[in-house]
Amino acid sequence: MPDTIPADSVGLVSPTTLHVDSPITLESGRSLPSYDLIYETYGELNANASNAVLICHALSGDHHAAGFHSMEEQKPGWWDTAIGPGKAVDTNQLFVVCLNNLGGCKGSTGPTSINPETGKEYGPDFPIVTVLDWVHSQVVLADHLNIKQWAAVVGGSLGGMQAMQWAISYPDRLRHVLIIAAAPKLSAQNIAFNEVARTAIKSDPDFHDGYYTEHQTIPRQGLGLARMLGHITYLSDEAMGEKFGRELRNDAINYGYDVEFQIESYLRYQSSSFVERFDANTYLLMTKALDYFDPAKEFNDDLAATVANIKARSLVISFTSDWRFSPARSHEIVDALLSAGKEVTYAEIEAHQGHDAFLMSIPRYIDIVKTYMQRVAIECKTS
Amino acid sequence: MPDTIPADSVGLVSPTTLHVDSPITLESGRSLPSYDLIYETYGELNANASNAVLICHALSGDHHAAGFHSMEEQKPGWWDTAIGPGKAVDTNQLFVVCLNNLGGCKGSTGPTSINPETGKEYGPDFPIVTVLDWVHSQVVLADHLNIKQWAAVVGGSLGGMQAMQWAISYPDRLRHVLIIAAAPKLSAQNIAFNEVARTAIKSDPDFHDGYYTEHQTIPRQGLGLARMLGHITYLSDEAMGEKFGRELRNDAINYGYDVEFQIESYLRYQSSSFVERFDANTYLLMTKALDYFDPAKEFNDDLAATVANIKARSLVISFTSDWRFSPARSHEIVDALLSAGKEVTYAEIEAHQGHDAFLMSIPRYIDIVKTYMQRVAIECKTS
Repeated sequence: MPDTIPADSVGLVSPTTLHVDSPITLESGRSLPSYDLIYETYGELNANASNAVLICHALSGDHHAAGFHSMEEQKPGWWDTAIGPGKAVDTNQLFVVCLNNLGGCKGSTGPTSINPETGKEYGPDFPIVTVLDWVHSQVVLADHLNIKQWAAVVGGSLGGMQAMQWAISYPDRLRHVLIIAAAPKLSAQNIAFNEVARTAIKSDPDFHDGYYTEHQTIPRQGLGLARMLGHITYLSDEAMGEKFGRELRNDAINYGYDVEFQIESYLRYQSSSFVERFDANTYLLMTKALDYFDPAKEFNDDLAATVANIKARSLVISFTSDWRFSPARSHEIVDALLSAGKEVTYAEIEAHQGHDAFLMSIPRYIDIVKTYMQRVAIECKTS
Repeated sequence: MPDTIPADSVGLVSPTTLHVDSPITLESGRSLPSYDLIYETYGELNANASNAVLICHALSGDHHAAGFHSMEEQKPGWWDTAIGPGKAVDTNQLFVVCLNNLGGCKGSTGPTSINPETGKEYGPDFPIVTVLDWVHSQVVLADHLNIKQWAAVVGGSLGGMQAMQWAISYPDRLRHVLIIAAAPKLSAQNIAFNEVARTAIKSDPDFHDGYYTEHQTIPRQGLGLARMLGHITYLSDEAMGEKFGRELRNDAINYGYDVEFQIESYLRYQSSSFVERFDANTYLLMTKALDYFDPAKEFNDDLAATVANIKARSLVISFTSDWRFSPARSHEIVDALLSAGKEVTYAEIEAHQGHDAFLMSIPRYIDIVKTYMQRVAIECKTS
């Protein structure tokens, strides 16, 4: 908890909820009659609404990207390292918007919300939402905020996929797109890891086919396993080695099946804290959104054709030790943009932290985002 | 099933069980009063017992390394591609021995065996067995077979660790060691994957703290999850991509939580077939043996000092796309052997199959093993 709010923090913030009272039809063909989107904003929208930046969150993220909800809050928002006055995404110059995605569990309508048609929680009956559906719902939020064109749409990992989808689907509604630690679609291995996570959740007897709330329980074991596995894929072998090595939890080997090495203890802790703050049906939904993301499938698997209509200029960033979405996956995006004659800046950051590097305070990474966003901010004053 | 036995097969084989009626004390300090070791042999031991080769199996392997148990058997032994008359490990010249390791579930004493002291299955009370314990028990088998010195000890993955341990612990009892797709110890990431697998098994309600047999059940979900996860780590991203890509199981996307992509269907099939043929407590034990393997820990983490007493000449092999035990891990072994002034041959095989490559018929790989083993066989005639 912060004793005092740091000077470069956006400070105390509170979210706003937009209730959308018109239906949204999803890619699956199903629709929601109405829905809530919870969001936060930092900085001030300028007079001609040209300085707005949308931050898209990843799998387990939410709308709380920067600042503190209270003086008691332990940690600031999830990308506080990059968002604030004078920071890379400078809230003295930019109006930053971050929302919890549809299907989430932090305030936007999702599996834990009440279905107005039944008066009961949606649970597993909540429709599957795709990256394109998210972008459509984010357009509704942009319209509500009178933002005709984002100065930039920014995201890492699954958030980078949303940013990319924005540039493809709404070419006139953003001037810049920042696609960080992402991929143009999941590989078979990526899908395989997601499937193991889903199987873990669904095979937990406390899952009850997704109706666990009705049974006054949550599938702790399954969701915990999914999170443990996720954690392995978020970190590099090297980062895990540096952090834990083969250090024993106790002084001597026990030759038993309890926790022996520090890494085991860390994973157990991570999983047990996660299950208290995240919803299992939402986790399933988010992994499905990842699996389904494949904008090139509408273009005969031709990624260059897929990005042909993009008008935004791009910054693509990858991290050397990221094996979830490796630099090679970013190269696919960059190559497609170049083939299509687009303006693209690409940075491959030396980092040993693995996929999680995109959330971290790595000087070269943050400097590149800052330099790029500074140019975006200057443009805002003239556009 | 073979219509006819191929000419280069060792043919129909049957295992032999050695009952050892003297106790073995394990690294954990616990002991077994007596135990069985089931093994197969192929080829003939020569007059001076100089042509014997020990094949050590990996996590889910067993004593059935080559040939067929019957004309009805669907597949030959697990390394039939390399063992047989005229093959890389030439049974016309060499006497090949392969056993199911202590703690296994295919005939050697392990968790599914009856504890003579209680008259009940050992189950989770079976002591944890380490790589060094395996080597000790393999020495007992060697003595029984009157093999004073192996021409070679050969193994891949966890089998390679046993081969390495033989060379370290019994320098006079082998002339050559083949360490394939192995590592001198597990990384934090390797341990983390094992811990997720173990957690999956132990949190299955059908596990019953390991006493699932008494409850007439098996922890299918947990063991299946462990196997699914294992499979991901055995294959490279590229191999999975080539085999499955993002192919849908059905023609169209369902936008549901059932199997959508071929890779999901493959993993489910693999896991459901595995649970019928492998014991969960044994799986736990094998992963622990992997975790604990770290021969250098007795030598102040100095691997060169660890291998200083080795007398065997070594062939170390790695595979480019193996990310479970990457070539870098084999380099550690090679560097240590070189630092210690040992004779070592190293081959890094271009292969896209990932860790599983060590079991496959990759021409360059099999050729290298064959050339090396040919030299071993020639030496046998003069030693």
